[in-house]
Amino acid sequence: MTLPTMKSILILTAMKAEAQPIIDKLALEKVPGGISHPMELYQGIVDGLDCKLVINGTCERYGVDRVGTQPATIAAWEAIRQFQPSLIINAGTAGAFKKQGAKINDIYLSEDKIIYHDRRIPLPGFERYGVGHYPCHSMDELKKACQLKSGIITSGNSLDMSPEDEKIIHQEGAQIKDMEAAAIAEVAWMTQTPVIAIKSITDLIDSQASTAEEFLENFNSSVTALAEKMNEVLHYIASVDVLA
Amino acid sequence: MTLPTMKSILILTAMKAEAQPIIDKLALEKVPGGISHPMELYQGIVDGLDCKLVINGTCERYGVDRVGTQPATIAAWEAIRQFQPSLIINAGTAGAFKKQGAKINDIYLSEDKIIYHDRRIPLPGFERYGVGHYPCHSMDELKKACQLKSGIITSGNSLDMSPEDEKIIHQEGAQIKDMEAAAIAEVAWMTQTPVIAIKSITDLIDSQASTAEEFLENFNSSVTALAEKMNEVLHYIASVDVLA
Repeated sequence: MTLPTMKSILILTAMKAEAQPIIDKLALEKVPGGISHPMELYQGIVDGLDCKLVINGTCERYGVDRVGTQPATIAAWEAIRQFQPSLIINAGTAGAFKKQGAKINDIYLSEDKIIYHDRRIPLPGFERYGVGHYPCHSMDELKKACQLKSGIITSGNSLDMSPEDEKIIHQEGAQIKDMEAAAIAEVAWMTQTPVIAIKSITDLIDSQASTAEEFLENFNSSVTALAEKMNEVLHYIASVDVLA
Repeated sequence: MTLPTMKSILILTAMKAEAQPIIDKLALEKVPGGISHPMELYQGIVDGLDCKLVINGTCERYGVDRVGTQPATIAAWEAIRQFQPSLIINAGTAGAFKKQGAKINDIYLSEDKIIYHDRRIPLPGFERYGVGHYPCHSMDELKKACQLKSGIITSGNSLDMSPEDEKIIHQEGAQIKDMEAAAIAEVAWMTQTPVIAIKSITDLIDSQASTAEEFLENFNSSVTALAEKMNEVLHYIASVDVLA
């Protein structure tokens, strides 16, 4: 743990239903107009930590949560500019691989780097930029204290995994597949803001069932488990001496 | 043409080498610190139009231009907030289909809508959100006056076209494939800012040659042609009575 000046935690979430159990568990309160529309800001003090949570908000064109990397990019950019957090936690749901030992409702911490699996740019110099390889903050003690699994997270804008996506995911040794973490890690890197991701597993990518079916079936239990673990994580972070 | 209050034009570009011939042709001047790092701002008066041009800037991690939808999202979000332009023009290079009559160095104007072809989200309500279908400003008179071709533009974060991408591109009747326009159109829609895209064709997606090879081979002639046409476009827009 090397965050001696940590004072404020920014939790970034894509879906309202991912955020709500965390908001309830941490007793955060809505701050109307606290961030640009259509994003939503919630705030509270958790064990002395200034804790802000931003939801991407609803797409007014289609009436659904603004999932994916473009809304995550705006949320990270805008919230970092406005709040200058000491640490960003991207909290949400994700897929993982059965063959790597993942189970539904497992909670993973980001490890080593966060990548994109859907930015294939085979031009001189652009290939590594496309994949990104953004660092996440190393939190081994947190992993032990809160009994988290960990792995390389990979993001893309589709719920499924195409053969092209799969190739990059396996080349990079990624274990957790979501739709936002890399975008947040990219903006965090640009602004030199420490970032971690905490992901609850809703679907096993290499199982027989479709990702969409598994996602819908396991979503509620998965976000409940996520909120419980987020509570543990924040209390742990607050308890560590180096944090104000 | 229904833009009675048009006063300022915001040109958004991804690559420095796409922007430079436009900057030279329009005699724009760099405004150091005029927009958040690493984006770059250029500005000038073109026939009485307040003309600003923003480049996504260089990725400091890999030393390449910040192409793709995430940097385009930030550029659009930040520049709209800061400059509140009357019209956004996304200018750049793109691919198109030989079988639809496209030729290298053709210049296309966005028509009808701009979509994403790499956001596949088969969850209830999310499918149309993924594709986006963002409107672009209708400019039939501009098309005629500047002898532009036109078509539906589709964006994704990869230079190639996977079978999954191709399926959506053909389903939606898209003719022009780039890596930024949909992200800009998405933010433009969110902020109710009129947007068009002007794209110069560097590669024919359905030719024998690889996209990367064609892109590199035709890039210089393509961006020169783009700058010539952008000059015509801006002088036309400035000449129209409804514009201040």
